[in-house]
Amino acid sequence: MAEKLSGGSRGKPIRCKAAVCRKPSEPLVIEEIMVAPPMPHEVRVRIIYTSLCHSDLTFWKMKDFPAIFPRILGHEAIGVVESVGEDVNEVSEGDTVIPTFMADCGECGDCNSAKSNLCSKLPFKVSPFMPRYETSRFTDLNGEALYHFLSVSSFTEYTVVDIAHVTKIDSGIPLTKAAGLLSCGVSTGVGAAWRTANVEPGSTVAIFGLGSIGLAVAEGARLCGASRIIGVDVNEDKFEVGKKFGLTDFVNASNSENKSASEVIIEMTDGGADYCFECVGMASVVQEAYASCRKGWGKTIVLGVDRPGSQVSIPANDILCTGKSLMGVLFGGLKPKSDIPILLNRYINMELQLDEFVTHEVTFEDINKAFDLLVEGKCLRCVICMNDQ
Amino acid sequence: MAEKLSGGSRGKPIRCKAAVCRKPSEPLVIEEIMVAPPMPHEVRVRIIYTSLCHSDLTFWKMKDFPAIFPRILGHEAIGVVESVGEDVNEVSEGDTVIPTFMADCGECGDCNSAKSNLCSKLPFKVSPFMPRYETSRFTDLNGEALYHFLSVSSFTEYTVVDIAHVTKIDSGIPLTKAAGLLSCGVSTGVGAAWRTANVEPGSTVAIFGLGSIGLAVAEGARLCGASRIIGVDVNEDKFEVGKKFGLTDFVNASNSENKSASEVIIEMTDGGADYCFECVGMASVVQEAYASCRKGWGKTIVLGVDRPGSQVSIPANDILCTGKSLMGVLFGGLKPKSDIPILLNRYINMELQLDEFVTHEVTFEDINKAFDLLVEGKCLRCVICMNDQ
Ligand SMILES: [Zn+2]
Ligand SMILES: [Zn+2]
Ligand SMILES: [Zn+2]
Ligand SMILES: [Zn+2]
Repeated sequence: MAEKLSGGSRGKPIRCKAAVCRKPSEPLVIEEIMVAPPMPHEVRVRIIYTSLCHSDLTFWKMKDFPAIFPRILGHEAIGVVESVGEDVNEVSEGDTVIPTFMADCGECGDCNSAKSNLCSKLPFKVSPFMPRYETSRFTDLNGEALYHFLSVSSFTEYTVVDIAHVTKIDSGIPLTKAAGLLSCGVSTGVGAAWRTANVEPGSTVAIFGLGSIGLAVAEGARLCGASRIIGVDVNEDKFEVGKKFGLTDFVNASNSENKSASEVIIEMTDGGADYCFECVGMASVVQEAYASCRKGWGKTIVLGVDRPGSQVSIPANDILCTGKSLMGVLFGGLKPKSDIPILLNRYINMELQLDEFVTHEVTFEDINKAFDLLVEGKCLRCVICMNDQ
Repeated sequence: MAEKLSGGSRGKPIRCKAAVCRKPSEPLVIEEIMVAPPMPHEVRVRIIYTSLCHSDLTFWKMKDFPAIFPRILGHEAIGVVESVGEDVNEVSEGDTVIPTFMADCGECGDCNSAKSNLCSKLPFKVSPFMPRYETSRFTDLNGEALYHFLSVSSFTEYTVVDIAHVTKIDSGIPLTKAAGLLSCGVSTGVGAAWRTANVEPGSTVAIFGLGSIGLAVAEGARLCGASRIIGVDVNEDKFEVGKKFGLTDFVNASNSENKSASEVIIEMTDGGADYCFECVGMASVVQEAYASCRKGWGKTIVLGVDRPGSQVSIPANDILCTGKSLMGVLFGGLKPKSDIPILLNRYINMELQLDEFVTHEVTFEDINKAFDLLVEGKCLRCVICMNDQ
């Protein structure tokens, strides 16, 4: 059990437990590691709750570059600042923070534009290192470096995160298990409906793929007042789950009497959905989502990560003649430092449902059970409670 | 020479001259034809000025469906109402009107939405007939039907147009040669910058293809206050022409020291253009335009008509990770009846340049010279002046 370090640990390495991914597809190994003090512009964070997201699974299974081992996975979390490096004024020891894989440096042209959430100073990449220095803060007890993941690495009692990748939470807001979901998946889905599509009251929405991100899109569309929210999946069970997030209709993509999902949706909606969201990560599903959109104003928004090299192909004259638009977005188009606090407030005000996404909880020692549950498709989010909670 | 018919011709067929396209790629034949009176919701219009647009050329050369012969081409024009059919209250005899290939019925969900210009009651199609009745109003002197084109058919002294395809011009506005250009090409380009992209002051714009539509995009971007307007073409001469429409830079797409146009543009603009417009009609150019856009907020807008079956192919993860958007638009996204009068006023106020697009004029008898000029790439717009002007 990790001590709640404070004051005394500042400036020194911390010895604590981490769940290390030493080989692809093998159970994580809980072992003791050393976490170096934060460098300038960095903070060291004690993780309180973390959860498993599909990208962790993807990089856990992946054998080749950009996979790299040994690595500390995990990027959806909430924690408390243990200590801060030089030049950090935004947070201090004891502050609750949500780390994010997206940076928000507050200085670059993108961070200063209302139109972009793609920081150009610390651009998104799947790097094995800290974003500002290209070095690691983790070593095992043999002195071997352990690699970082998505600038977060939350499957450890302590981690180091760049200040651009940390959103401070108001001290008045209770630190709950569900709040950590705003670190990645739920924000991505809700943000896509709210910030990127800007779904209007009364609109019709179609969501392709009803995993947590797809359901978070539904939750976002519900909050925006969409009157019809159509879920598309190959698993009918998802409809029951989705109803609590506002799903009104279901289309079984694999069983629609020889009709494609887009044909069914166009019939149901008398012309197509106003907004279509692709949450699967397959070019063919992007094409189907595009085909399901209403001519004149339909927007297709891509959230799913496809395999490298995959190409989305759209007839040139469909682009010209239908007036539809196609775009993609990381982290739902949200700017972490300004938008996460807004979503958190809507959760506190009981408008945004977050607790409903937490279907399972395990202790840190049982972190591999979280992987089993997600692999088996049995959970939306499994929260991993760190030892001293 | 056609009489200026008024009153007496109402309700009767009119015998007048038309330039008939009897065979693909052969000179139009000036012959006498009969123009039936307008049916309900239709108006018969005396054409005053018409001009030649690329789509006329395309359908003049095309051998197979949807090409059809004998046909009266022409769809960019301005004229005066000779008589109206039943149930037409919007215009009356003597009104100046601009016909458009796009309908604006004022009744359907699209016409009543601020977000669409794609009338769903009379949807855009390349039909050989009047849009509401699927019949022709033209016969030759042997009684053979002549086909319509794009709901306008302006290469005739008199034509019949559906009321949804006609925009009334304020009686105080002089009927000029250039005003007819708002019927198609210039509106398409200016509208794309103004209505569809909504180019902000200070933005950077790249235009692929510097024909009349590309130059009209430049004019629109100039009016919107774009600070940098980059033209991309294989013909360097276009730069000089383009300067008067606001072009500030030129990229030769075929001669850039082994760099692609997108690489040159990304370098010039330190990251890419805010708005890219494809005015060529080639999937590969759409892809290049998309690649030339600024990550985070770049928009690519497709105006060019590609050959049927052509596919635009974009890497799925570029869509996801760049935050760029891709869309296409007909008639620049303009709603004819509300937007043409706005553009015409800006022309009258000497803000919008129209006269500069009229590089040539011919008489109706010389209409085939207009085809030669456009085929040879020697003109932006050649206005054909009908006989009694
Ligand atoms: Zn994630
Ligand atoms: Zn930034
Ligand atoms: Zn045209
Ligand atoms: Zn309409």
